[in-house]
Amino acid sequence: MGFIITFENKNTMISTPKEELTTRLQKVQQVIIEQQADACIITSSVNQFYLNDFIFDGYLYILPESDPFLFIKRPIGIKGHRVAYIRKPEQIPNMLNHYNLPLPRRLLLEADTLSYTSVIRLQTALSMPIIANISQKLREMRAIKSDFELNQIRESAKIHAEVYSQIPSIYRQGMTDIDFQIELEYIMRKAGSLGIFRSFGENMNIYMGSILAGDNAQIPSPYDYALGGGGINPLLPLGANGTLLKEGITLMVDMAGNYRPYMDDMTRTFAIGKVPKIAYQTHQVSIDIHNEIWETAKPGTLCSDLYLLAEKKVRENRLESYFMGAVQQAKFIGHGVGLEINEPPVLTSRSKETLQPGMAIALEPKFVLPNIGAVGIENTYIVNKNGLEKITLFEEALIAL
Amino acid sequence: MGFIITFENKNTMISTPKEELTTRLQKVQQVIIEQQADACIITSSVNQFYLNDFIFDGYLYILPESDPFLFIKRPIGIKGHRVAYIRKPEQIPNMLNHYNLPLPRRLLLEADTLSYTSVIRLQTALSMPIIANISQKLREMRAIKSDFELNQIRESAKIHAEVYSQIPSIYRQGMTDIDFQIELEYIMRKAGSLGIFRSFGENMNIYMGSILAGDNAQIPSPYDYALGGGGINPLLPLGANGTLLKEGITLMVDMAGNYRPYMDDMTRTFAIGKVPKIAYQTHQVSIDIHNEIWETAKPGTLCSDLYLLAEKKVRENRLESYFMGAVQQAKFIGHGVGLEINEPPVLTSRSKETLQPGMAIALEPKFVLPNIGAVGIENTYIVNKNGLEKITLFEEALIAL
Repeated sequence: MGFIITFENKNTMISTPKEELTTRLQKVQQVIIEQQADACIITSSVNQFYLNDFIFDGYLYILPESDPFLFIKRPIGIKGHRVAYIRKPEQIPNMLNHYNLPLPRRLLLEADTLSYTSVIRLQTALSMPIIANISQKLREMRAIKSDFELNQIRESAKIHAEVYSQIPSIYRQGMTDIDFQIELEYIMRKAGSLGIFRSFGENMNIYMGSILAGDNAQIPSPYDYALGGGGINPLLPLGANGTLLKEGITLMVDMAGNYRPYMDDMTRTFAIGKVPKIAYQTHQVSIDIHNEIWETAKPGTLCSDLYLLAEKKVRENRLESYFMGAVQQAKFIGHGVGLEINEPPVLTSRSKETLQPGMAIALEPKFVLPNIGAVGIENTYIVNKNGLEKITLFEEALIAL
Repeated sequence: MGFIITFENKNTMISTPKEELTTRLQKVQQVIIEQQADACIITSSVNQFYLNDFIFDGYLYILPESDPFLFIKRPIGIKGHRVAYIRKPEQIPNMLNHYNLPLPRRLLLEADTLSYTSVIRLQTALSMPIIANISQKLREMRAIKSDFELNQIRESAKIHAEVYSQIPSIYRQGMTDIDFQIELEYIMRKAGSLGIFRSFGENMNIYMGSILAGDNAQIPSPYDYALGGGGINPLLPLGANGTLLKEGITLMVDMAGNYRPYMDDMTRTFAIGKVPKIAYQTHQVSIDIHNEIWETAKPGTLCSDLYLLAEKKVRENRLESYFMGAVQQAKFIGHGVGLEINEPPVLTSRSKETLQPGMAIALEPKFVLPNIGAVGIENTYIVNKNGLEKITLFEEALIAL
């Protein structure tokens, strides 16, 4: 599209290849045509970045044919073809008129993330077009990654493994889970973690990831993550809660793999001193589930079959009461990853999706053992033509600290 | 209201006094009556916490009279009067029926934050009541704090000052702004920072605050903050961008004061070695604006008058081109702070609000000087009966590093 940002920053920005931006745009245009809409307006950061390679406060106005328009509130200084500055959405009709474009009668918006107030304001400003939702379609589009995108996930996973390799050096006797998390966050930031951990949905707050030690792993949380934890604050009741890392408990580390715009996801579990044999055995069941899925899954495999395979292994080992939580149990064992940590597909017993080449999926069969803590691992896999490529390469056994 | 959370976490949770929760609830009930609505449903974390003292995934269902109902999806284990578990909003009518309650015909929702999809789904589930928006009313309510709330802001400010006092010890020659930020984040987390930095609105992403060194302070951002900065990633173009902290530039530190659920806001500026005289002079204008407002503002003062006072001082010093940015200029000099970093009132030339006892306001008259960087300070003040109480007590002059 060829926009120029006048004030360039000094970051290590990797530009998305132009042809790829064109392909993505064409897919959105295809949806506009299929949905018999007249236009689509993109306002979320994640989708603006996906389609436009940079974000702005304003409206990316996409038509079924021809280049999109950028109606920008902030930042100033962006120059280019079809770029116009506005102060408020009520000016969009004038802009459309200026470019000899009609008002849309049917309009696609990101209704899953845009607030009700913003949608109604836009709808009113545009003389009340019918509103349809493009959020889910964009999520499905983003679920299938290009080589350019997959390489960023691979790079993130590599840094993620390097960061986890430093865990034994930061552990000290007498630490709490939150002390440990702070040390790890520091290493993560030094390694280039972006800090911000992007997730989709209204109940997905998190800060840099989750550390669960001992019975804190049992505490149910209001969020839609695999496991919970009490947290250190009533406004973020999730993860580390001040538990002392004492002999005999496990420490599950599920910190963000956000080293690129694209993310990976990886969990490893550590044993504080000597832990009961059941912890090793149950941890091994998680690894066994991984290995079986890694060896058998391929494009066309039903996502629900992955869940059922895991469930079968859990039943065979009579671990139903501890699978995906001991008190509150999550009903999924994995999810796609990309620009957001929770992308399609979701791996549940009722998923309708199949694996497709270009997907990146995080698999996280986990268990919570009372009086011990959480065990199990999470890996990210890329779905290639012939099967799964494991990209989170780091010691999988229960690691003694 | 007397709910019991079965699985208590180990955090240093401070419970809101019961009478205070009752008062807040009564204010919402008053709004329901004034707006001639039948009920109000609260779903956002920040407002659930404000009205309920804990958060959950689900619906806080408030009636104009009588105790509210909690329709909870997650976490499990919450017991109490009028608590019921549901899986989806479509079950709310059954629940209302169970409690012999009619469906609402007019319903208040947090339409500024709840997604369009969620509102439509709720509306459909409840047989299409008329939807009205309670977001702004709740923000206005939260803008006037109780002593209990103000004390948390004071406590946060005290820790904030202690953290900033460690800045000279973390600075090392040859550091970049991001190196510096990572060291400061580490100290902040050790001092109890929650990590998550809550803000209101669709264009308010941030990570732990903003560090601006040299000409990076000029780079416009898409966000609605006082100043910008290029950032280190295209998905978060804000703040530190890898600028080397070299002799002659300034370093503006505006990191989060999130040490309690309630927040304070404070900015201080540091000089790397010797900086030009104009930096000291301009910095002093910011301090002068603070002092004049601190001495004169009181309950009843128009927020717009505070802006105009600042603007007058800026004109007298012929600093218009550098005020609140050199390239992109913000049109406000301050804002309320509380559970979110940007609460009412906003201090602009067009604000209609007046200062009221119980408000906590952050004042941030800042300047951006080309080839030097940002200068100025930000303090948080509490509006007391007789005037402003400054709570961010820390050296205000340009501090040499």
